[in-house]
Amino acid sequence: MQQTQSYIEANRQRFLDELFDLIRIPSVSTNPDHDKDLQRAAEFVQDCLKAAGADKVEICPTNRHPIVYAEKIIDPKLPTVLVYGHYDVQPADPIELWDAPPFEPTLKDGKIFARGACDDKGQMFMHIKAFEAMMATGELPCNVKFMIEGEEEIGSENLPQFIRENSEKLKADIVLISDTSMIANDIPSITVGLRGIAYVQVEVTGPDRDLHSGSYGGGVVNPINALCQMIAKLKDDKNRITIPGFYDKVVELSAEERAAMAKVPFDLEAYKADLGIEDVAGEEGYTTLERVSVRPTLDVNGIWGGYTGEGAKTIIASKAYAKISMRLVPNQESEEIIRLFSNYFTSLAPKGVKVKIDYYHGGEPVVIPTDLAAYKAAELAMSQTFGKKPIPQRSGGSIPIVQLFKSVLGVNSVLMGFGLDSDAIHSPNENFGLFNYYKGIETIPYFYKNFAELSK
Amino acid sequence: MQQTQSYIEANRQRFLDELFDLIRIPSVSTNPDHDKDLQRAAEFVQDCLKAAGADKVEICPTNRHPIVYAEKIIDPKLPTVLVYGHYDVQPADPIELWDAPPFEPTLKDGKIFARGACDDKGQMFMHIKAFEAMMATGELPCNVKFMIEGEEEIGSENLPQFIRENSEKLKADIVLISDTSMIANDIPSITVGLRGIAYVQVEVTGPDRDLHSGSYGGGVVNPINALCQMIAKLKDDKNRITIPGFYDKVVELSAEERAAMAKVPFDLEAYKADLGIEDVAGEEGYTTLERVSVRPTLDVNGIWGGYTGEGAKTIIASKAYAKISMRLVPNQESEEIIRLFSNYFTSLAPKGVKVKIDYYHGGEPVVIPTDLAAYKAAELAMSQTFGKKPIPQRSGGSIPIVQLFKSVLGVNSVLMGFGLDSDAIHSPNENFGLFNYYKGIETIPYFYKNFAELSK
Repeated sequence: MQQTQSYIEANRQRFLDELFDLIRIPSVSTNPDHDKDLQRAAEFVQDCLKAAGADKVEICPTNRHPIVYAEKIIDPKLPTVLVYGHYDVQPADPIELWDAPPFEPTLKDGKIFARGACDDKGQMFMHIKAFEAMMATGELPCNVKFMIEGEEEIGSENLPQFIRENSEKLKADIVLISDTSMIANDIPSITVGLRGIAYVQVEVTGPDRDLHSGSYGGGVVNPINALCQMIAKLKDDKNRITIPGFYDKVVELSAEERAAMAKVPFDLEAYKADLGIEDVAGEEGYTTLERVSVRPTLDVNGIWGGYTGEGAKTIIASKAYAKISMRLVPNQESEEIIRLFSNYFTSLAPKGVKVKIDYYHGGEPVVIPTDLAAYKAAELAMSQTFGKKPIPQRSGGSIPIVQLFKSVLGVNSVLMGFGLDSDAIHSPNENFGLFNYYKGIETIPYFYKNFAELSK
Repeated sequence: MQQTQSYIEANRQRFLDELFDLIRIPSVSTNPDHDKDLQRAAEFVQDCLKAAGADKVEICPTNRHPIVYAEKIIDPKLPTVLVYGHYDVQPADPIELWDAPPFEPTLKDGKIFARGACDDKGQMFMHIKAFEAMMATGELPCNVKFMIEGEEEIGSENLPQFIRENSEKLKADIVLISDTSMIANDIPSITVGLRGIAYVQVEVTGPDRDLHSGSYGGGVVNPINALCQMIAKLKDDKNRITIPGFYDKVVELSAEERAAMAKVPFDLEAYKADLGIEDVAGEEGYTTLERVSVRPTLDVNGIWGGYTGEGAKTIIASKAYAKISMRLVPNQESEEIIRLFSNYFTSLAPKGVKVKIDYYHGGEPVVIPTDLAAYKAAELAMSQTFGKKPIPQRSGGSIPIVQLFKSVLGVNSVLMGFGLDSDAIHSPNENFGLFNYYKGIETIPYFYKNFAELSK
């Protein structure tokens, strides 16, 4: 892999410039105003894969945003790696909290600041550049397929159908994904567990129009007050979720697993200081690391209703809304959780309001075995470039695709991510360290090499 | 008053056209973008008063929106009526729920649809036109002063200072205000009680930035969930407000007063049908009419935080906000209630969030004696034009100015309003019946005549 590494070294600036070009395309998948940008981003990815030497490069249309596919089969007898990533990004709101324009990448303190810098344009692009380097130097040691989608941030709506319809084409020995983070730059880790997700929007309707709060106040149910009461009832005073049946299928960690987690380096004071909070909080009886990775959650992601402008307006709103998501752990199932939530939430509504629940998206929790050849290949690759053996770690995020690959294609995934929790993904001032971007590009070829050797 | 009535009859169309011109000025006092419109509305009122024959017409600047003053002193020995009204209006949001543009008055089903059609441009303008009619016919029977402000919808911030500094100029025997409603067009009523108000905005801050709800969910206090829990705790399961001390000064109605209120015509089924709600709700042990008029309330008027756009965004917001108002009844005091609220609300915050409370405006509750000459003059005037004696009624709304006049000038008010609860003031499709507009203009001169005679 020496030539590959030299090639990477020689092309550092260009690899960064190209990533910047990709970032400049505001491919916000949730917003229909950006549909053309999604198409442009897909074309950009396509062009890069073609230029790197991939075959059968194509933009596959879906009902919404297209999927870019490409492959390089050097020998059918060699193992095949399927690289998954996504070119879509989260919205940039609240835009006023960014220090620089979100879609104009800015270098500061050795980091790239921009929406998508890490999630997932930066991490996905590492794979394209690593592939380019191996191709340019003739050092690609196994077959590779790319599937880069544009709907990850909106629940990968059309991916299941695509995978089912293309299961032969997508056949692979392992899926390789960089869309997670490490503990720290000097504490490399590999994600071996992901939470699932169930995301809903609720609408509470009271009177059929906004009312004057003087004339009607006290006499009718105020939908905002009602929504607040209903949300408050979703957790008890031990921060346990009160939805009947919610925890029924949750697999409790063994004492050994908890002991192993407790050994993961974690500085609570630094964590609080980083977030600017006086204290952490969460489900009673669990550590912070457990709460954010192996325990299920319920969070309101957005709420709105009534007058939200400048000054005072004395109304009782007709409607109040909230976006609510639950993170799920093995063996919770998103559809069942949505059903349990919907039944319970509706039952909390006082007489005098109506409740409507829209189901946005769901994804299943997953745990990845650490005895796979591919996991060992990743472990060894990171040891080679970081000089330290990475720690297996369960993450709180959700990548529904992982469970999908397992169930539809029967293929496991390796989650070799190079981001950090401090990258502020989904937040203003998202960033990705130059160290991390280049370390990713350098590590990936070793993974291929190790995987080819361990698969023999 | 016969000539006055003939004059009104002869000028019906012009009186409506002029009101339309006033309504077309979008004088939304809470929004600084409309400051020029407030000035234009003040000038419009000034011009109308001048044209009607008032003296000393002037636009008095304040720290924000000006006050229009005018007077006609025909004989210092005659009683003086001080007419109070306001030319500012509530915002038109949510604008998409209007059937026609809010600042382009539309006639439909015998009603004027527009923001301010009733509150208070329509009702205030009745006084200017009645004055014009009495002046034109030489039938003005007492002295009159006008004080028309532009900050009523934002808490009359600068009015107290103006009244204190102009107490000599404003000297009067009664304040006459049309900014309230009647029970129905065939059940005239006069408002003899108003609730006070205490309005705050609360801000709950958790982490210093928006966080990814996968990486952090379950480990930190979510400010939106926290805000909902805090709001939910402000009322108990009997819909009693839980703020310690909140009810301490509330004067309970006597059995006689409750019996009198129970006789006021009120059709609960029609009320529910009008609002499109399955059931009413409110403080246990009180009727709907009591709940909306003689009992204090707490309503969230607006709430917002996190992602509120299209689709799903998986964040934990840094901040969540709510606008909360309390309606007060005798003898609650707005400043004390704000203090009690602030202490209690802050105490409800879980560790891990910070709370900031902004005090918007307050007004004191008031009860008006029905044995005043001016009350009897109004009662008789409405009997003369409606053919029915009006019912004294306590209203749920707030007109802080009433208590201010009493305390600073020592003058009582008569609240002779001609609106209806169904006028949708502060809401989309605000409207004012042509019947009500003209009935107001016709009734006001009788009030002057009766008041002059009863004051002899």
